[in-house]
Amino acid sequence: MAPSFVINGGDFAAAIGKTSSGGRASSVYSEVQTSRIDYALPLPSVLTGPFKIVDGPASSAAGNPDGIASLFPNLFGQPSTMLVPTDGEHALDSGRKLKIGVVLSGGQAPGGHNVISGIFDYLQAHAKGSTVYGFRGGPAGIMKCKYVELTPDYIRPYRNQGGFDMICSGRDKIETPEQFKQAEETAVKLDLDGLVVIGGDDSNTNACLLAENFRSKNLKARVIGCPKTIDGDLKCKEVPTSFGFDTACKIYAEMIGNVMIDARSTGKYYHFVRLMGRAASHITLECALQTHPNITIIGEEVAAKKLTLKNVTDYMVDVISKRSELGYNYGVILIPEGLIDFIPEVQQLIAELNEILAHDVVDEAGLWKKKLAEQSLQLFEFLPQAIQEQLMLERDPHGNVQVAKIETEKMLIQMVETELEKRKLEGSYKGQFKGQSHFFGYEGRCGLPTNFDSMYCYALGYAAAVLLHSGKTGLISSVGNLGAPVSEWTVGGTALTSLMDVERRHGKNKPVIKKAMVELEGAPFQKFASMREEWALKNRYISPGPIQFMGPGSDDVNHTLLLELGLVAA
Amino acid sequence: MAPSFVINGGDFAAAIGKTSSGGRASSVYSEVQTSRIDYALPLPSVLTGPFKIVDGPASSAAGNPDGIASLFPNLFGQPSTMLVPTDGEHALDSGRKLKIGVVLSGGQAPGGHNVISGIFDYLQAHAKGSTVYGFRGGPAGIMKCKYVELTPDYIRPYRNQGGFDMICSGRDKIETPEQFKQAEETAVKLDLDGLVVIGGDDSNTNACLLAENFRSKNLKARVIGCPKTIDGDLKCKEVPTSFGFDTACKIYAEMIGNVMIDARSTGKYYHFVRLMGRAASHITLECALQTHPNITIIGEEVAAKKLTLKNVTDYMVDVISKRSELGYNYGVILIPEGLIDFIPEVQQLIAELNEILAHDVVDEAGLWKKKLAEQSLQLFEFLPQAIQEQLMLERDPHGNVQVAKIETEKMLIQMVETELEKRKLEGSYKGQFKGQSHFFGYEGRCGLPTNFDSMYCYALGYAAAVLLHSGKTGLISSVGNLGAPVSEWTVGGTALTSLMDVERRHGKNKPVIKKAMVELEGAPFQKFASMREEWALKNRYISPGPIQFMGPGSDDVNHTLLLELGLVAA
Repeated sequence: MAPSFVINGGDFAAAIGKTSSGGRASSVYSEVQTSRIDYALPLPSVLTGPFKIVDGPASSAAGNPDGIASLFPNLFGQPSTMLVPTDGEHALDSGRKLKIGVVLSGGQAPGGHNVISGIFDYLQAHAKGSTVYGFRGGPAGIMKCKYVELTPDYIRPYRNQGGFDMICSGRDKIETPEQFKQAEETAVKLDLDGLVVIGGDDSNTNACLLAENFRSKNLKARVIGCPKTIDGDLKCKEVPTSFGFDTACKIYAEMIGNVMIDARSTGKYYHFVRLMGRAASHITLECALQTHPNITIIGEEVAAKKLTLKNVTDYMVDVISKRSELGYNYGVILIPEGLIDFIPEVQQLIAELNEILAHDVVDEAGLWKKKLAEQSLQLFEFLPQAIQEQLMLERDPHGNVQVAKIETEKMLIQMVETELEKRKLEGSYKGQFKGQSHFFGYEGRCGLPTNFDSMYCYALGYAAAVLLHSGKTGLISSVGNLGAPVSEWTVGGTALTSLMDVERRHGKNKPVIKKAMVELEGAPFQKFASMREEWALKNRYISPGPIQFMGPGSDDVNHTLLLELGLVAA
Repeated sequence: MAPSFVINGGDFAAAIGKTSSGGRASSVYSEVQTSRIDYALPLPSVLTGPFKIVDGPASSAAGNPDGIASLFPNLFGQPSTMLVPTDGEHALDSGRKLKIGVVLSGGQAPGGHNVISGIFDYLQAHAKGSTVYGFRGGPAGIMKCKYVELTPDYIRPYRNQGGFDMICSGRDKIETPEQFKQAEETAVKLDLDGLVVIGGDDSNTNACLLAENFRSKNLKARVIGCPKTIDGDLKCKEVPTSFGFDTACKIYAEMIGNVMIDARSTGKYYHFVRLMGRAASHITLECALQTHPNITIIGEEVAAKKLTLKNVTDYMVDVISKRSELGYNYGVILIPEGLIDFIPEVQQLIAELNEILAHDVVDEAGLWKKKLAEQSLQLFEFLPQAIQEQLMLERDPHGNVQVAKIETEKMLIQMVETELEKRKLEGSYKGQFKGQSHFFGYEGRCGLPTNFDSMYCYALGYAAAVLLHSGKTGLISSVGNLGAPVSEWTVGGTALTSLMDVERRHGKNKPVIKKAMVELEGAPFQKFASMREEWALKNRYISPGPIQFMGPGSDDVNHTLLLELGLVAA
C-alpha cells in the first residue's frame, strides 16, 4: 500500500561521494520506479554468445562525397560494420582493460541512462577492470574534464529510469581549435581508449569531427555516437529510429487520448494540441497514428504544398463546419511545434519585421507597415492582435522576433474563431466553437522509458562498447531488425561520414547529418493520408492509455517504426 | 505488435441502433483499452453472499437541522443504512423487476462508466428482467425524457474505460417547479422505480431534492446519489472519497514527476504547474504528497493565514533564492487552479473593478484608478501588465472580470521574475531564473480509471442498485473501509440530509452539501507541512510513473485517502 521507498540512501551517498548536483543518492522512489530498476533487459542473441566483427564495403557520403572526404581525410570511406555470431572464439580480447568516457548531449530523451548501463555492463562482462567516466553536463564536461567515475552502485538507481540526471547533459559544442585542444587534453589526461557521444544529428556530427581529430593527432581515443532524440529526426536505413521517440510519443498519445474522450464526453470543446518537434513533424504524425484526431497538420506537407496560414486555417474551418453539420461541435487537432517555420510567407514576414525593427521607428499610427511587402502586410493584418503584439515586442538578445515564443495553438484558435464568426454571419456555419489549447512537451522528455526504449538503449550502449573494444571509431551504434523479437535484433556500427552532407554556413563548408524529415511518400504519412478524411468526420478516437510495463500493450512498438519497416500497424 | 483493434463494430451498431452521438459503436480501441474491458472486478464480500440491510439511528444535519427539516419534511431524520452479511436468506426479493434510470451530472471523472455497469450487473444478477435507462446529456435528459435503454452489448465497450460518453453528462439542474414537473413526468412515463444521480455536491443536493419531491408526490421512484468529482471535495466519514480523484491525481502526478526529472536533468527551469481544483486544493495536496515538489501552494492555507499575493510571491522568491545558493537554479512549483479565489485582497480588487467597469469610463490616463481603494490600487499596480490588461479586457457576458481566465501560473512567473530582478540589483540573489508554465487539467478527467477507481465505482454502483432494490431513497451510496482489501469493504447508504446545511442565497434558504476543503489540521496537510521544508531545499522528487494496471504499484491507493484513514503513506 505504501507507494514509495527511500532506496539505498547511505550506500549511494557513500559510493558516489557527497555531490551537490542533485543526483539520486538517497532519492525517494515510487513503487513503479523501484520495480523498473530490476527490470531484466534481454539482449540481442548475437551479443550473448561469441561473435566476430565483419566490415562491409567502403562507404561514401549522403551527399557531396568529395567535400566530406576533404573534411574527414582520415575517416572518409571507412566501412560500416556488423556483429555476426560465430562458433569459434570470441573476437575481442577480454583481458584488455578499457578506459571509456561517455557524454549526454542536448535535450533529454527517455532511455539515455540505459545506454550508459549498456556500455558499463558490457565492459564489466567482457573487459573486466575497465573504467567508465561520465562527463558531467554535456560536452562542456569533456572540455573542462569534469567527470564522475561510474560504479555499479552509482548506476543502479538510474537503470530503466527517465531523465539524463545521472551525469546531466548540455548544449555546448566542441567547435573551435581551442575546444578541440581541451578535448584532446582530457583524452590524454584520462588515458581514454574511447568516448561515446549520446546525442542528436549535431552531436553525432560533432562526435565524428572529434573522432577525425583524435585520429589525426594519433590519440588512441576512439569515438562512437549513439542516436538520441525524441523528435525522431535522426534515422536512416542502418539506424531505424532514435531512442526516446517511442516513449515520448506514447506519453503524448496518452494525454491526447484522454483529451479525446473528454472532448467526446463534453461535446463542446475543440482541443488544439501543440506537440514538440521544431524541425520535423514525426511526433505529431506518430501521435496521430496512435490516436486518430480529427485534424492533424504535418509541417512537411505544409511546406511541400506551399500552404499559407490562411490555407491551414481554412482547412481547419472546413472540417469544423462539416463536423458541426453532423452534430459534432467538438474535436481534437494536432499541431507540430515547428508549424510556423514550415510556412514560407511567415518566414518572409518575420525576415521583413526583423529588418524593420532593427532600423526603423515603429510609430503608433502604423506608418511603418508601409515598409512591409504587400503579401507580408496582408499576413500581418490577418494575424490576431495578440500575435501581432508578440511579434513586435518579444525579441531575443539579438533583437530578432522570437518565433519559438509564439503559441501556435492559441494563434490558430483565434484565427479559426474569427473565420467561423465570418461564416456564421454569412449563414454557412451554424455551430458553436470553443477552443482549448494544450502544449505537450516537457512531460514527454523524461518519462520512464517504455520496454522498447529500455531494451533498445541497452543494446545501443552494449553495441557502442563493443565497437570501442574492437578499436572502431567514427561509427554510430546501430541496432536493427527492430520489428523482430529482441533476440533477433542486429548489432553493428554505421560510418558517420556515410550519413553526412556538406552545408555552406557563414561562408564555410560544414559537415551535417541531414535531419530525417517526414517523407510524404513514406509509409507512415501515406497511412495517415489514407485515413485522415475518415478521422475528420467520423470519430475514430483511440485512447492508448498510460504506458504499461507489464501485460497487454507493454511490448508494443510505435507505428512509425513498424510502418517504415514494412510491418503492419493498425 | 499491432497495437489497436476495431471492437465489435457491427454488433454494437446493430444493438444500439444508429446514433449520431459519437458513441463507441465501431470504436477503434488500443490494446490497453481492450484489455481493460475484461478486467475482472472483485466485489466487497458482503455483496457476494446473502445480506440484510440494517438501519442506523435517526440522522440530523451537518448544520441548521431545523432548516433542513423544513426543506425536507419527508426525508429529514431518516437513518443511514448498512449491508450486513447474514447466514439466513437474502433480504431482497429477486423476483421483483425494477425500472431504474441513471444520470451523469457535471464534469467528467474516471470511473463513471463503472458505476453504471455496477448498477446494471447487480440488477442482472439479483433482479433479472429489470430495465436500466441511461438519461442522455445529464439532468436535461431527465427533463426531456431523452434516454437510451442499456443492454449488455451497449455497456460492454465502456467497462473500466474513462469518460462519460456512454450517456454523456450535462450541467443543467432541476430547480424550478416546472423542471421538477418535467422530472415527475419522466418518472411516471418510464414507470421508474428508481433513479441514480452520479455527481458532485450540487448534484447530490439536487438528487435529495428530487427524492423529497417524488416522495411528497407519492411517486414510487426513489433517488440515490453517488459521489463523483476529481476535485475530491465531496467526502465525509461515511463517504471517504469521491471517485475519479485517485485516477486524476495519478495522471497529474505522472506528468509532474516527468517534469521534475526534466528539471533536474536540465538544471535551468522552474516549472510552475497549475492543477485543477477551483474550490478546494485536494488535488494539489495529493500531487505534492506523491511527487515532493519544492514549493506547493495550498489555497486553504493562504485563506486561513490571510496571505496576500505579495506574501505568496515572497515565499516563492525566498525558496528560489535559497536554492540558488545551494547551486539549484531549477525546481517545480504546484499551484491550485483556485488560488486567486483564496486571496482576500484579490477578491476585493475584483469586486471594485467590476463596480468601476460597470459604471465608469476607463480613461487612458488612468484617472479611473483613483476610484480604487488604497490597498486595491497597490495590488493592481503590483500585478504584471499582461494581467492588468486581462482583468480590464476579458469580461463575461454580465460584464464581470473573468477570474477563471487568469493563468495564475504565468502571472506568478512574472511576479517572481520581477522580484528576483529586484533582489539581483540589491545583490541578495545571484542565480538564474527561467519559468516554464503548465496547466494539467483536461488530461486527467477522462483517463482510464485506476484499479482503485474501477473497483470503487463498481461497488458504488452495485450499492446504489441494492439501495433502490430495498426501497431506500435520499441516500448517497457509501462504500467504506477502503484501506482494506476489497473483500472487506463496507457497503451502505448515507442520508443525504445528514450531510446538509442551509445557505442563504438570493434571499432564499438553500440546502447545500458543504464542499470538503483541505483541513489544515488533517493528516494529509500535516504530513505535507512536516516535509515541505525538506522538499524545498533538498531534491526529494518522486516520479510516480504512468498508472499501471498490472504488477507493482497497480493497486496503490492515493496518499490523501490513506492518511485520512490513519494508514501510513510514505
